[in-house]
Formats: sequence, C-alpha cells, structure tokens
Amino acid sequence: MEFSIAQIATMLGGEVRGDASGKISMLAKIQDAQKGQVAFLSNPKYEHFIYSTQASAVIVKRGFQPRKELTTTLILVDDPYSSFTALLEEYHKLISFQKSGVEQPSFLSESATIGKNIYRGAFSYIGNQVTIGDNVKIYPHVFIGDNTIIGNNTILHPNVKIYAGSRIGNNCVIHAGTVIGSDGFGFAPQEDGSYKTIPQLGNVLIEDNVTIGANTVIDCATMFGDSTIIRQGVKLDNLIQIAHNVEVGKNTVIAAQAGISGSTKVGENNMIAGQVGIAGHLVIANRTQIGAQAGISKSVKEEGQQLLGYPAIDIKEYFRSYAVFKRLPELNDRLRDLEKKISAITAAESTSEHGQ
Amino acid sequence: MEFSIAQIATMLGGEVRGDASGKISMLAKIQDAQKGQVAFLSNPKYEHFIYSTQASAVIVKRGFQPRKELTTTLILVDDPYSSFTALLEEYHKLISFQKSGVEQPSFLSESATIGKNIYRGAFSYIGNQVTIGDNVKIYPHVFIGDNTIIGNNTILHPNVKIYAGSRIGNNCVIHAGTVIGSDGFGFAPQEDGSYKTIPQLGNVLIEDNVTIGANTVIDCATMFGDSTIIRQGVKLDNLIQIAHNVEVGKNTVIAAQAGISGSTKVGENNMIAGQVGIAGHLVIANRTQIGAQAGISKSVKEEGQQLLGYPAIDIKEYFRSYAVFKRLPELNDRLRDLEKKISAITAAESTSEHGQ
Amino acid sequence: MEFSIAQIATMLGGEVRGDASGKISMLAKIQDAQKGQVAFLSNPKYEHFIYSTQASAVIVKRGFQPRKELTTTLILVDDPYSSFTALLEEYHKLISFQKSGVEQPSFLSESATIGKNIYRGAFSYIGNQVTIGDNVKIYPHVFIGDNTIIGNNTILHPNVKIYAGSRIGNNCVIHAGTVIGSDGFGFAPQEDGSYKTIPQLGNVLIEDNVTIGANTVIDCATMFGDSTIIRQGVKLDNLIQIAHNVEVGKNTVIAAQAGISGSTKVGENNMIAGQVGIAGHLVIANRTQIGAQAGISKSVKEEGQQLLGYPAIDIKEYFRSYAVFKRLPELNDRLRDLEKKISAITAAESTSEHGQ
Repeated sequence: MEFSIAQIATMLGGEVRGDASGKISMLAKIQDAQKGQVAFLSNPKYEHFIYSTQASAVIVKRGFQPRKELTTTLILVDDPYSSFTALLEEYHKLISFQKSGVEQPSFLSESATIGKNIYRGAFSYIGNQVTIGDNVKIYPHVFIGDNTIIGNNTILHPNVKIYAGSRIGNNCVIHAGTVIGSDGFGFAPQEDGSYKTIPQLGNVLIEDNVTIGANTVIDCATMFGDSTIIRQGVKLDNLIQIAHNVEVGKNTVIAAQAGISGSTKVGENNMIAGQVGIAGHLVIANRTQIGAQAGISKSVKEEGQQLLGYPAIDIKEYFRSYAVFKRLPELNDRLRDLEKKISAITAAESTSEHGQ
Repeated sequence: MEFSIAQIATMLGGEVRGDASGKISMLAKIQDAQKGQVAFLSNPKYEHFIYSTQASAVIVKRGFQPRKELTTTLILVDDPYSSFTALLEEYHKLISFQKSGVEQPSFLSESATIGKNIYRGAFSYIGNQVTIGDNVKIYPHVFIGDNTIIGNNTILHPNVKIYAGSRIGNNCVIHAGTVIGSDGFGFAPQEDGSYKTIPQLGNVLIEDNVTIGANTVIDCATMFGDSTIIRQGVKLDNLIQIAHNVEVGKNTVIAAQAGISGSTKVGENNMIAGQVGIAGHLVIANRTQIGAQAGISKSVKEEGQQLLGYPAIDIKEYFRSYAVFKRLPELNDRLRDLEKKISAITAAESTSEHGQ
Repeated sequence: MEFSIAQIATMLGGEVRGDASGKISMLAKIQDAQKGQVAFLSNPKYEHFIYSTQASAVIVKRGFQPRKELTTTLILVDDPYSSFTALLEEYHKLISFQKSGVEQPSFLSESATIGKNIYRGAFSYIGNQVTIGDNVKIYPHVFIGDNTIIGNNTILHPNVKIYAGSRIGNNCVIHAGTVIGSDGFGFAPQEDGSYKTIPQLGNVLIEDNVTIGANTVIDCATMFGDSTIIRQGVKLDNLIQIAHNVEVGKNTVIAAQAGISGSTKVGENNMIAGQVGIAGHLVIANRTQIGAQAGISKSVKEEGQQLLGYPAIDIKEYFRSYAVFKRLPELNDRLRDLEKKISAITAAESTSEHGQ
C-alpha cells in the first residue's frame, strides 16, 4: 500500500507539478499531514496551510496559482474533493480487504463449502453445510451456524453471530457483535400466568449491499419457510432491534437504537432516526421519514410523510403543538382569568337584571 | 430426525388416510410444502391448497371431506392447528438439543464440574469451580466465569458472557451476545468532579424457565451476598438493560430495548413494552402493563394498571390528553379569540357604564 | 486473600476487641455474614444483628458499647462505613487483578508488544503492531485489532472488541461485549435512491480512568487523523451508542441506552440519564443534566441546566407543562363552556341592543 505520487496522479487523471517520485502511504488533512501522506485543498480558506504543510503531495484544482513558494508536490485535478474521496475509498477497500489466509486455531466443519480468497480469523467458527462465496472476510470470533449461506465479498467483523439457516447476500458488511437469526420473542400465555415458548423456526434473509452496525439484533421469522427480510441496499446502524418477520424495504436507512416490532413491513427509502420505535404488524409506506424517538403505532399509508411524537403525527403539527405545550401553564392561567371575568360579567348582568 | 407418517400420526393420536409409509423430515406451510414435509389445514380458506400441495402429508380435522382428488396423505386429528404446533415444538426441541459432544479447541477448567450429555462448542470457556447440570448446551464462544452454577437443560447460545459467581436455573435459554453479571453502574462523586468506582461485589440470580434474548445486559448487585434477580418464567427480549439489584417478578415479560434502573422491583406478570424506561428504587405492582416508550418515574402501587407517557399516566388518560395536544394550536387560537371577545364586552360595558 | 482480624484492623487503623487471630476471607452484610466474614455496623437500627451475627468480626464505631454479650470480635474505627467501603475496594482490586498468566489457546501477533504482568485469557486475540502496557487484564474472547495502543492497568472483560488503530488509556475498565471503533454510520445518497458508503478512516481515543459498561458501541471518526474521543474519567453505562466524531468531556456520566449522534461535543461533568438521545453536530455545555428519555435537538449553551422532554426544555417547565397536559381534556371542556357563555352573553346583548 505504497504508491508514488506519479501513480496517484495517474489514478486520478491528474497532472503533477513538482517531484513525482515521492512515496505516499496514507491520506491526511492538509493541516495535519506528514511526510509520506497526501492531502487536498478545496476550500480557499485552508490555502495558507499549503505553504507550510509537511504533506508529500497536495491535490489541488487545475489552475491553482500558489502565492508563495511551495515545498510540497501538487497534483492538479478538476475536483480536488472528489479526487480525494475517491482515493479514500480506494484506500478503505485496500484496508478492508487486506486480511487474507487462515489464522489458527479456527473451526471449519468438514461439510462446509468455502470460496476463493477467504480470510478466516483465529477462533472463527464455521458450522455444518455452510456455504461461503469468494473474497469473504471472516474476522476472529465470528460464529456461522449450520446451513448458512453467505455471498461474495461480504465482511463479517469480529464476533458477528449468525444462527443456523441464515441467508446473507453479496457485498454486505456486518459489524462486531451483531446477532443475526436469534429467536423471535414469541410466547403463548398459559392459564397459570406462565408463558410457553412458541418455537421460532424461520430464518433471516439479508440481500446484497446491506450494511449493519455493531451489536444490532435481527431475529428469525417464526414459521418454517418464512424469513425476516432485509432488502438490498439497507443501512442499519448500531444497537438496532429488528423483530421476527419484519421486512425492511430497499435502501431504507435506520439510525442507532431504533426498534421495529414483529411482522411490520417497512417500505423502501425510509429514513428512520435514532431511538424510534415501530409497533408490530404495521405497514410503513415508502419514503417515510421518522424523527428521533418517535413512536409509530399505526400503519403509515401515504408515502413521503415526515412524522414525530408518540403516537407519531406530522412533524410540523407536532412542533406547532409542542410550541403551545411549552406555554400550557400560561394558557391555563389565561383560561382561569377568562373564567373569572365571565363570572363577573354574568354576575353583574344577573345583578343588573335583578336590579331592573 | 426423520419419521414415517404413521409415527407422526401415532404421536398426535391421529388417524392416517392414504400412504402411511412416507418419510417426513420437516414441517411447512401448506402453500409452500414440499415432498418429505408435513403441513396442516385449519382455516377453510386455505382448503384449495390441499389439492395441489406437494406435502407428503397434511394434518386435517377429523371429518374433513375432500371435494377433489388428493395426492397427499391425510392425518386426521381433533385440532389440526394445535397438533401442528405440538409437532413444531417437538421439532424445535430436537433441533435445539441435537448438538452434543465437545468441539475442540475449548477451555474447561480442571476444577469445573459438568453434568451428563453436555454440548461444549469450540472456543467455549468454562472457568474455575464452575458447576453445570445435565443436558446443557454451551455454544461456541460462550464464556462462563469462575464459581458460576448452571442448572439442567439450559441453552447458552453463541457468545453468551456470564461473569463469575452467577447462578442460572434449569430450562433457561439465553441468546447470543447477552451479558450476565457485568458491574453495576455505581460511582461516588468526588470533590474534584471526578468519580470513584463503587466496587460491585454481588451477583446475578436467574431462576428456572427464564428466556433471555440477544445482546441484553443484566448487571450484578452491588453488595456481597446481594443478587440482581430474574424470577422464574420471566421472558426478556433483545437489547434490554437490567441494572444492579433489580428484581423482575415471576412470569413478567419485557420487550426489546426496555431498561430498568438500579434497585427497582418489578412485580409478577407485568407486561413491559419496547423502549420503556423505569427509574431506580421503585416498586412496580403485579400485572402492570406499560406501553411502548413510556417512562416510569414513580412506584406503581395499584395492581393491573395500564400506563403510558412520560412520566407515565393511565393509558386512556394519556390518549385523551394527547388527542387535545394535537389540537393545541387551535385551542390557543380559540382562547385568544375569547380574550378578544371578553375585552370587547368589558370595554362595551365600561363605555355603557360611563355612558349611563 | 485471607487475612487475620489483626491484619485487617491494622489496615484500617482500628483497634481489636476480642479474638484477633480469626481468619477473614470475605465481606458481608451484618444480617447475612457467616464465619470467616467481616461485616460492619453503622446504622443503629441494625444493632440487634450484632448480638446474633455469625460474622468473625464486625467493624464498629469507637466508643460502641454493646448492650448484650457478643460472640463476634469487634474492630473499632472512626467511621465504620468508610472503613468497610475501603475494605470492599481493596477486595475488589484483589479480585479484579487476581487473574494472571496466559491461557491457551490464545492468539498473539509476533509484532505485538506487551507489558509486564499481563493476563491473556483463552481465545483472546491480539493483532499486529499492538502495544499493551503493564498489568493489563485481557479476558477470554477479547479482540484487539492491529495498531491498537492500550495503557497500563486496564481491564478488558470477556469479548470486548477493539477495532484496529484504537487508543485506550490507563486504568480503564471495559465490560463484556462492548465494541470500540466500529465504522461510523456515513452514507452518501445516490441518484437512484441507493447509498454509497463513506469510508470511515478515523479511530477512537479513550483517555485514562474511563469505565465503559457492557454491549456499548463507540464508532470511529470518519476522517484520517480524527478521533471519536472519550475524555478522562468518563463513565459510560451499558448499551450506549456513541457515534462517529463525538467527544465526551471529562468526568461526564452517561446512563444505559443513551445515544449521542455524530460530531456532537458533550461538555465536562454532564449527567445524562438513561435512554436520552442527542442529535448530531451539537455542543452541550458543561454540567448539563439531561433527564431520562429526553431528546436534545439544539446545542445547550448555558452551563448547569437541567433538561427534559422532546425537544428538551428546562425540567421544571417541562413538569409544569406536563401537569397541565394531564388535564387537557378538562381544559378543553372549560374552553368550550366559556365559548358557550360568551355566545350567550353576546346573543343577549345583541338581543338587548336590538330590543332597545
């Protein structure tokens, strides 16, 4: 993971001004960059840093005219910010996929089938009849239960736990400590007040390009042949609860600590903020946006709504009502005041009537 | 785990109509079932599936009269739904308890005592002086700290972490990633603004027939000899926080992401919904039902209440108040309108009085 | 870990009355204590227990005059409660630090540098170029990613997961299942409704004397060279979400299941209650106290405020408004009543006017 400045310029379709032979091994911000690092300059207010930076190279916009002498090499491109972002992504891929081979001890069932170029970290566990695609990275302490199928290029960070029978697609990333396929929370009340466990026999199906944060939990579906489903492109944050038989639609984004109760179907392109709770057996329309800590207790039928509060209502209405809520003691006083005035008027009229 | 149709009929006290020799290895819904699977028909609106199903057998009510030709074998019982549920349970038990033996590498202290028919998965860890009953299933990556005692037939899913000194009963199920016995959150403020850790020396006591979801945390009690207690039959969902010295009463059910603060005693047969928060040092009466996201800040003395809101009040009152909350801007307008009218009346009277 | 009563008295600067040769191996409450244990008596209402306790010794205030015969040995000190607490702490340290040596199998990269007197539990994983100080306790199933640096006397409980490049200070305690350094939740929306992952290349920096509960998650910062920062003395409870680029100020205490969104800077000495949510890109002043389940949507500029509600307002104002909220249906009725009265008055006047 070391490139010459010339190589980086070529990758970016840029042009070098200065010494093109320097070596680059990392990226950094212009104010912090050291030798061996490349930075970028996009916002003119950071320009002064370019004259003192230790960076071996700085990516700048074509046509940049230095006002002082430079010690760093310039890489001239059309859009320095996007070029830098592209480099970052490239670097991230290299980092993410640099682990390879097998560390020991690790556990691999004889009946498992694994693809090419797999990383299997120490203490990872791959159960019976598991099938794993190519280029999958399985970090230490990962558990993959029997009969699970995992696609290509998926990364399972340390200690991800996948129960038996799960299906996980291609290009997924699952962060540390997340649990896939634990039993749904299903109990039948008995006459003596105790509960009998309803067997949870379905599985979890995660489509392609799904990213899941750390310590999140996705329960399996209740019935055989049913799945809790996370559709393609969904992004889940940390510490989220996805209950049994939930379906999360394509490209929906859910922030940390939100929870979705059993059998609810969340539409596509939803944006669900942190600590939101959604009750069970609901249907949430596409493009719904749910504000932080809101509680959804009814299905959302109209697409594209923005909701807040518990039970959640239109976000603007919530704020209008909340503005009055904050002044409720004053409203109460005003109401009492009016009551007195009316009493006085009524009394006066009554007197006046009696007086007539 | 393969049975003949005749065997299944015998288990269910049912009667076979058709070929009793077919083999069954799985259960499925009638619309999805394949060869080798058994389904059930209970709801008449699904009847049409029975004429085309691939299932090797279908459980139906005694007296069922097919209206077309059948290719599947029938098992006639009194109540097809309960029979199917009973089969599901049996199957689930077989699945849950099918793991056995010892996978290597695993860690077992020489001073530990373990019962008969234990499954110890690879990378499981059993500390010093641990005692474990019969038929316990310890999945990979489970950690059992020193001096812990675990009863019979308990299942610890992958990566359950049990701190030293915990007590866990019979027939418990604990799902992946759950932590039992971590330190309570106790810190004494110092004069310089920093905090000193209060040593947490108690333990966690979990009685029989308790089920705990994934990534939940139960802290130990503060003092020696004290326990955070989960009484028999309690069902806890995923990502729940149970703080130090809490006691959760018999057969109470708590949904995902709820949190109970230190030293609170929750009664029996409570139903606590998702994301509920209960403050510390409270007593919650038996049969209390707490709605989603509610916050309980005072003890609940009367049994059988339904509560909602923050701080929580009677659920019906909450909804009545919330109904008005949603119209607060309108109320505010009406109040302002009244004020104007009263001013006008008062002014008129004043004028009128002066005019007299 | 067994001391004579005489040794304990010396540690506490106390004086023995009775047999000083008894052995003490544990601490207990006076009502529960057994032979071999030491208890304390501070509150006079527990005095009766001292005459029947099985404790080998009881710590009492100098000048204590027993009113009956005693079978236990007394240790007389100035302040029995603080003496007992001091003993507890000493005991806790002994317990916490009693683990030592290396259990096998465990994984230690050849390029890692580790200090003196380290405990490395079975199945622990220490990656490349990791540096670990002295007296660090690494419990089973801990994962320490490449290039991580950990100070002295830090305890990592079972299954803590530390991503590559993290920095953790001295005297820290991190409980089971907690994840340090997982990717921040950053995705750039694309024109087709999908999201592109923004590479997360920063790290997490945890200063000295920080305690973190179980199953908590702290995401890494987005950019190279940036850190999500937990300042010295911070105490975090279980199941907390700390997003990318957050900074938590010195000696701030955060209770379970709270969540802080990306780039927010929390001041020093904050007290943040359970299930609180704080939006992203905010600055929270020092000494702010945030009540349970509150939602903070704006920066808090004035120090020392107490906040509650969503969006959070002054706690007293919240309660005043909430008191009226609970009576909103009544207010609504009173308002309607007034409207009728005013209508009647207006009608009467109108009639009266017409009548004139």
